[in-house]
Amino acid sequence: MSDRPTGEFGLIEWIRARRPRLGPDRGVLGDVGDDCATVRFDGSTAIVTTDMLMDGRHFVLERDGPEAVGNKAMGVNLSDVAAMCGLPRFAFVAVALPRRDAEAIGRGLDEGLRRMADRFGVAIVGGDTNAWDGPLVVSVTLLGEPHPLGSPSRAGAKVGDAVFVTGPLGGGLLRGRHLRPEPRIREARAIRPIMNPTAMIDLSDGLSSDLGHVLDESGGLGAALDEAAIPIHPDALAATAADGSPPLLHALNDGEDFELCFTASPEAAARVVAGVTLHRVGEIVAEPGIRLRGDDGRMTPVERRGFDHFRAS
Amino acid sequence: MSDRPTGEFGLIEWIRARRPRLGPDRGVLGDVGDDCATVRFDGSTAIVTTDMLMDGRHFVLERDGPEAVGNKAMGVNLSDVAAMCGLPRFAFVAVALPRRDAEAIGRGLDEGLRRMADRFGVAIVGGDTNAWDGPLVVSVTLLGEPHPLGSPSRAGAKVGDAVFVTGPLGGGLLRGRHLRPEPRIREARAIRPIMNPTAMIDLSDGLSSDLGHVLDESGGLGAALDEAAIPIHPDALAATAADGSPPLLHALNDGEDFELCFTASPEAAARVVAGVTLHRVGEIVAEPGIRLRGDDGRMTPVERRGFDHFRAS
Repeated sequence: MSDRPTGEFGLIEWIRARRPRLGPDRGVLGDVGDDCATVRFDGSTAIVTTDMLMDGRHFVLERDGPEAVGNKAMGVNLSDVAAMCGLPRFAFVAVALPRRDAEAIGRGLDEGLRRMADRFGVAIVGGDTNAWDGPLVVSVTLLGEPHPLGSPSRAGAKVGDAVFVTGPLGGGLLRGRHLRPEPRIREARAIRPIMNPTAMIDLSDGLSSDLGHVLDESGGLGAALDEAAIPIHPDALAATAADGSPPLLHALNDGEDFELCFTASPEAAARVVAGVTLHRVGEIVAEPGIRLRGDDGRMTPVERRGFDHFRAS
Repeated sequence: MSDRPTGEFGLIEWIRARRPRLGPDRGVLGDVGDDCATVRFDGSTAIVTTDMLMDGRHFVLERDGPEAVGNKAMGVNLSDVAAMCGLPRFAFVAVALPRRDAEAIGRGLDEGLRRMADRFGVAIVGGDTNAWDGPLVVSVTLLGEPHPLGSPSRAGAKVGDAVFVTGPLGGGLLRGRHLRPEPRIREARAIRPIMNPTAMIDLSDGLSSDLGHVLDESGGLGAALDEAAIPIHPDALAATAADGSPPLLHALNDGEDFELCFTASPEAAARVVAGVTLHRVGEIVAEPGIRLRGDDGRMTPVERRGFDHFRAS
């Protein structure tokens, strides 16, 4: 018996705790939980993120095809750079291709990776191409430049800040939207100088879980969200038709929207960012936890659906 | 029917040919075939390499254990940085852990990664931890600083250059030496200013194959190697005892030695690098192909064992 946390987050915490304390003396800036690592060397600062996708977990190769996989693999990394308001520059791609059809899969995958990289001005400059008897695995590492005004962390939210999301949420897995993320690079770079976000994260695990990370890392705060203000994606309605669970719950808990969620001071929250759709969904409060405010003013606690990759099947 | 090359190298060539031409205007320096990519941004230059290891291909988890896997995953990437005479700084690790034993494997893996990183002053600053029903996959991306005097490429060998290796070769897979690479970071950085290598590569696929890459990329040159000068590892003798194939063939063709192979001008070749073991094994010639020079002066062509990861089982 042990009282250490178990599962994915337990392992991640254990790994973090065992790392030597990394700080500016080692060239490591930023916070350990951010969407990208921030490193300093030779007088420059870089942001770096890495995401690995596996067949059966993040896509189904047979159903989705290799181009969609390439598209998603590049897209989810671009979304992490967006959450830092960064400018993506260089990508490095490592793949394990199923041997029986390695060439065709490799070509389709590259097609999808390249198309997404081209759209965002990213150069794919390195990689490692392998084949094996296992399922397709693709790992992308993206190197970018931080925003000149600095990167919002996950840890800077303050009581009274407004909470925003950049687009409608929910049902991302149902009709394949998760394979076509629209990384909010442009939006983040427009938001950064005008609204000076106090915290920012991209919505990969779902609003309740990802906003939960921000609240935890900002010192154990809470959020009050306005039920009527949460933008519902049409896919969330389709998900409701399929499983009967209310659209709002899909918007709160489904993952893989790849929209941004951020907080900003009340003054900044009143500003307009030209050409960027923003939904103000609530505010940060001192009492921990996420609560939903109904039309009648009644508050309902939101169960946080922490997605544990070790447990999910 | 198609006349395009097939297999791993065919796919890699196809991918390369379809890339937009990447050059200094996009911040991409160096040659596409080098052990690391060289990128320039924000006034600094970084070298980056990525290598993915898969259970059953690069290790056998059940036999080798997760710590050895972590050790190797960090080590092979460090070896790529050594081949650029670079200084490794930051590592990013993405893993797909077998769900049934994810935590224990994750802990062991991190132990091995961290130990190797610590030895070489590398900070592990980012990653992505996943679990799935498939075998263990680990992908490490390493970011480093180029040597201030510049990185040797694979493409700079010249006729008349001497060929060196940094240690004994062969049998690396037999007794698990491939799991304990000794990245030649220190050696490379000592060699760089004194011998000014014209080309350098790390020996992952085997001398005949890796030196072959240098010869190809240097414009289709050849090499004459002195049979008696090629350092044979004791593991190569053990491999001979096991399979009857001569030790010299093991030294030439077995992979995963992770020593460096480099070329240097005849003047530079005469210099001594204090504290670094060097074996001068032959010289670069104009006629393409690798030949072995026996004690009697007779030349024997060396069959190049290009290791095709798509074909090997």
